Amino acid sequence: MPNKHENPYNALKRIFHEPNRMAIISALCSTSNGLTFRALKEQCELTDGNLSRHLKVLEEAGVLMIEKKFVGAKPQTRAFLTDKGRENFVEYLQVLEEVLKKAAEAVSTSDAGSEQPFGAIKTARA
Amino acid sequence: MPNKHENPYNALKRIFHEPNRMAIISALCSTSNGLTFRALKEQCELTDGNLSRHLKVLEEAGVLMIEKKFVGAKPQTRAFLTDKGRENFVEYLQVLEEVLKKAAEAVSTSDAGSEQPFGAIKTARA
Repeated sequence: MPNKHENPYNALKRIFHEPNRMAIISALCSTSNGLTFRALKEQCELTDGNLSRHLKVLEEAGVLMIEKKFVGAKPQTRAFLTDKGRENFVEYLQVLEEVLKKAAEAVSTSDAGSEQPFGAIKTARA
Repeated sequence: MPNKHENPYNALKRIFHEPNRMAIISALCSTSNGLTFRALKEQCELTDGNLSRHLKVLEEAGVLMIEKKFVGAKPQTRAFLTDKGRENFVEYLQVLEEVLKKAAEAVSTSDAGSEQPFGAIKTARA
């Protein structure tokens, strides 16, 4: 769980807050068998270079494991989420939810902001 | 509203996704009369240098206006959110909400993820 005394905005300064990394981890969360480099590249709409760079950062942080093997004559790279990676991502999402509620509240309680309420967030808080 | 055809993760690559800037804009959303440099610094737990840098970026993007005046003998800097800034922030929060739901769904539908459901997000979707 996020530290209750920590400024929630500070807690966002983590590895997952980069949008492409959020996309990569979300895609990996949806499978139990990992995803190939090619599948990740397509799902996350990334170039080879960008995906490689993000995978390296995430692997070094222990968030995922990279497996390289041959399938027939072709080399295949596959990424798997680690247990630690999943736990940290869940914590990150909890902080993000808290920050989003706070921001949505700030927007909807201010004088000029009543025209665009956040239905889903309000329902969630009720 | 966010463009429906846009990858929501790409839509996060915007000025608001930096955690300190989210804190600054959220604080400004809660007031109709702007906030002084000093109040923002305290609320957002930032140094003078960091706050100045973020305010400059946000002012150049048209998200906020900076007013410098003398109050008695003391100079005072005050930041106000612009209408455009508020609109863009609301759009950003909508995209963020979408991305958060998607990620929470990925986490809670996968094999290993049932121990930490996202109650609020699930309620919001029901």
